[in-house]
Amino acid sequence: MTPEGLGATGDMPPEELRRLAHETADWIADYMASVEGLPVFPDTMPGDLRAALPASAPEDGESMDRVLQDFRDLVVPGLTHWNHPGFFGYFAITSSGPGVLAEMLAAALNVNAMVWRSSPAATELEDVTTEWLRILLGLPGGFEGVINDTASSSSLYALAAAREVAYPEAHRTGLFGLPAGRIYASEQAHSSIEKAVLTLGFGQDGFRTIPCDPEYRMDVGALRAAMEEDVAAGVRPVAVVPTLGTTSSGSIDPVAAVGAVARDFGAWMHIDAAYGGPVAILPELRPMFDGWEQADSIVVNPHKWLFTPIDCSVLYCRRPEALVRAFSIVPEYLTSSEQSESRSLMDYGVSLGRRFRALKLWFVLRYFGREGIVRRLREHVRIAADLEGWVAKTEGWRVVAPVHLGLVTLRYAPTGVVGPTLDAMNHKILDRVNASGEAFLTHTVLDGRTVIRVSIGNIKTTEEHVARVWALLLDAAATVSAAVDETRQADPAR
Amino acid sequence: MTPEGLGATGDMPPEELRRLAHETADWIADYMASVEGLPVFPDTMPGDLRAALPASAPEDGESMDRVLQDFRDLVVPGLTHWNHPGFFGYFAITSSGPGVLAEMLAAALNVNAMVWRSSPAATELEDVTTEWLRILLGLPGGFEGVINDTASSSSLYALAAAREVAYPEAHRTGLFGLPAGRIYASEQAHSSIEKAVLTLGFGQDGFRTIPCDPEYRMDVGALRAAMEEDVAAGVRPVAVVPTLGTTSSGSIDPVAAVGAVARDFGAWMHIDAAYGGPVAILPELRPMFDGWEQADSIVVNPHKWLFTPIDCSVLYCRRPEALVRAFSIVPEYLTSSEQSESRSLMDYGVSLGRRFRALKLWFVLRYFGREGIVRRLREHVRIAADLEGWVAKTEGWRVVAPVHLGLVTLRYAPTGVVGPTLDAMNHKILDRVNASGEAFLTHTVLDGRTVIRVSIGNIKTTEEHVARVWALLLDAAATVSAAVDETRQADPAR
Repeated sequence: MTPEGLGATGDMPPEELRRLAHETADWIADYMASVEGLPVFPDTMPGDLRAALPASAPEDGESMDRVLQDFRDLVVPGLTHWNHPGFFGYFAITSSGPGVLAEMLAAALNVNAMVWRSSPAATELEDVTTEWLRILLGLPGGFEGVINDTASSSSLYALAAAREVAYPEAHRTGLFGLPAGRIYASEQAHSSIEKAVLTLGFGQDGFRTIPCDPEYRMDVGALRAAMEEDVAAGVRPVAVVPTLGTTSSGSIDPVAAVGAVARDFGAWMHIDAAYGGPVAILPELRPMFDGWEQADSIVVNPHKWLFTPIDCSVLYCRRPEALVRAFSIVPEYLTSSEQSESRSLMDYGVSLGRRFRALKLWFVLRYFGREGIVRRLREHVRIAADLEGWVAKTEGWRVVAPVHLGLVTLRYAPTGVVGPTLDAMNHKILDRVNASGEAFLTHTVLDGRTVIRVSIGNIKTTEEHVARVWALLLDAAATVSAAVDETRQADPAR
Repeated sequence: MTPEGLGATGDMPPEELRRLAHETADWIADYMASVEGLPVFPDTMPGDLRAALPASAPEDGESMDRVLQDFRDLVVPGLTHWNHPGFFGYFAITSSGPGVLAEMLAAALNVNAMVWRSSPAATELEDVTTEWLRILLGLPGGFEGVINDTASSSSLYALAAAREVAYPEAHRTGLFGLPAGRIYASEQAHSSIEKAVLTLGFGQDGFRTIPCDPEYRMDVGALRAAMEEDVAAGVRPVAVVPTLGTTSSGSIDPVAAVGAVARDFGAWMHIDAAYGGPVAILPELRPMFDGWEQADSIVVNPHKWLFTPIDCSVLYCRRPEALVRAFSIVPEYLTSSEQSESRSLMDYGVSLGRRFRALKLWFVLRYFGREGIVRRLREHVRIAADLEGWVAKTEGWRVVAPVHLGLVTLRYAPTGVVGPTLDAMNHKILDRVNASGEAFLTHTVLDGRTVIRVSIGNIKTTEEHVARVWALLLDAAATVSAAVDETRQADPAR
């Protein structure tokens, strides 16, 4: 088969694209309708796909039909299906129909929102959608939003702005020869915060973790003591990064109290609400966010829990001039006459090239509306609480951390079994559930103990799916317990 | 109209998605077939789209048909059409049919290539496609590839690795108290290099620009002298960043000679081949790249000149262990048993979340094949040389920099007109051409003079489009000249 476009130059002919895009549209609709029938985690080993593909690109172009066939036969069976309603791993992020439609269009348009002139509507729709989201979240005016790829980037940019404020002279001289500085976060903070600290040149010593209370929230007294100690030692406090929805336990740092400490020390407060932020849309959960309006910057990820395909992370900044000071370099070839009338979004971060990410957020906010978003998030929070209740009342199981959002942490800990054996049992339970193909879970460690995470956040996940993963967990625990009992009976000395 | 999904929870029903995806497929095919009929740059002013949209998100969900209608009526007329064959601005990047199909699928799958386990085929396809591209480019084995969003990120990550090598102690202590370090690039280097230097904490003093020869290539003697001077002053040379295809002039830095200097000083060589890299696929242009195989890292952007939708930037690194040392932080919740058998791509840069970008590169490389890519790039280079020839032989015009790739720099400079008047005339010519709606150009400044850039790189651009923009330029020059003559006659004293 010869591709229709071969022999010529130019792109795939529009009629070939039309035919293939229709085929692909059907594949996507079928996939969305049937993804629950696929194993969440694939039956594959490292190297399987690599071994199935040639060592180099083809010499001559291939028919797109053949490429799509290979996609279906070789790629799809090797994917972990994040769309599966039984996907409870990491943070169960979620795409949606309107998001997929927007991404189709954005890929076709292929515009670049670096300056207004490079695609006016792309810049202005980013203004509009980040403003709409700000209002939904209940954040005051003055928080200016910009869309980045991931929270890792958003937090890096926010902390670069914090560095700019703490070390105005460093913009010229660099950090060489300046007094050491530190960024503070709880020991439960996401790894992206430490990564940002390293990237910015502060080193591991520039990152100080603050212990948590028994509910995995930053200990504000310990934060103040740490900052006092550092200031006395000549270390400059640069920023404090509390989290609303930590990755291991879903804990909520007390941002109002943290903010007060940060202010006392003149430090920037950046809030990592990448995961938890979207539920500020729920009026009944808004009190958890008290004080976040005092932050200098906040990251919220619509691609995590707001039905927007990855990647879409919104950084809100109340001191955008510091962000722009950190990142604005305007060479002649990017100057234009509209600079004074519109934001140049390239000035708010590292990436110059910027996909048209606002489109998907706009489609999602309009299709679901505030009310539709509230209804869906509320349901996720409700079914997470259901699971928490089931675990709490089941002998041998315990809920490890309070459930505030969609993340439930649990551990099988039957009486009479201790320490490392329990950890191994929980890993085995996890592996058994994942091997079922019906659900996908990941683990963490809290207080030195292995913990199973059930992260509820995919738009397709219902109470039935949560009930099913709970049944799978109970079943796996029974099997694993029986094996442990057998081992004991075989070797009573153990 | 009520969206079909309203009142329920869950996503858009698959059958609604099917209908809308088919509609969108048709819109995309129609758009691709007719984009040439649209004005390249829209008739819009800053604030127009913002004013046309409500101040906040809707309370109730809206019908997707209405959202798509607004997309067509309000958004599309406000876009700069990068797909238009008359788009010659910035670097004329290019998408393609296979790339669009892949992005549709990637959006639907919504998987995350952070670790192997989070989606095995996504990680392995990134291994495979970056390896295929490495072979096409003629780079030796040992260069390990990873896909980032943009060259700005790729260069930031590469220079973070360089910092890791130059300051091993800084991983712990940060840059505080260490001797100052510097990164070198020519005065024609892209702004992203200086941005990376600032982000990494080196400050503006940590970036030293090296003068160029008359063809805008880095002066290697001046580089050596600068590095000698710095070393004598106690400044640590961290990295040198030559460019293959600078943004203002398309110049090609002499990488073999630059690499020899870098080695003499123990500095990392990172090559910015974001724009020029893809033409290393053409055997007849390969000599321009002599010596790039000695780089420590190289960035090449398939989203610039390799038919891949934005964003897709490949960073090749010959010392990946330094990159991983700079960025690897593995918290418990991201550990898994396959870590030793497969790369964890999150360890190669800042972003933890990683879209399935390899899919579009795979589709593009297979659909066009090596031969199809060569044919298309060769044609772009040929028509750029054509334009260079037409300009060179036309009185009153001059080609400002030698044409090696797809970028032609030109300036209208009729005899008897000087300095600032010429700059203003060239700006007026540019504005007239852009107002035509048939072509879009941007400018730069070289040697203090305003220069018009004609960047050829979109897959739809043919010789006819280049001839047309040249006719538009000649016509605009005639009009602008006539206006200048009239002014002179009206005021002979000038």
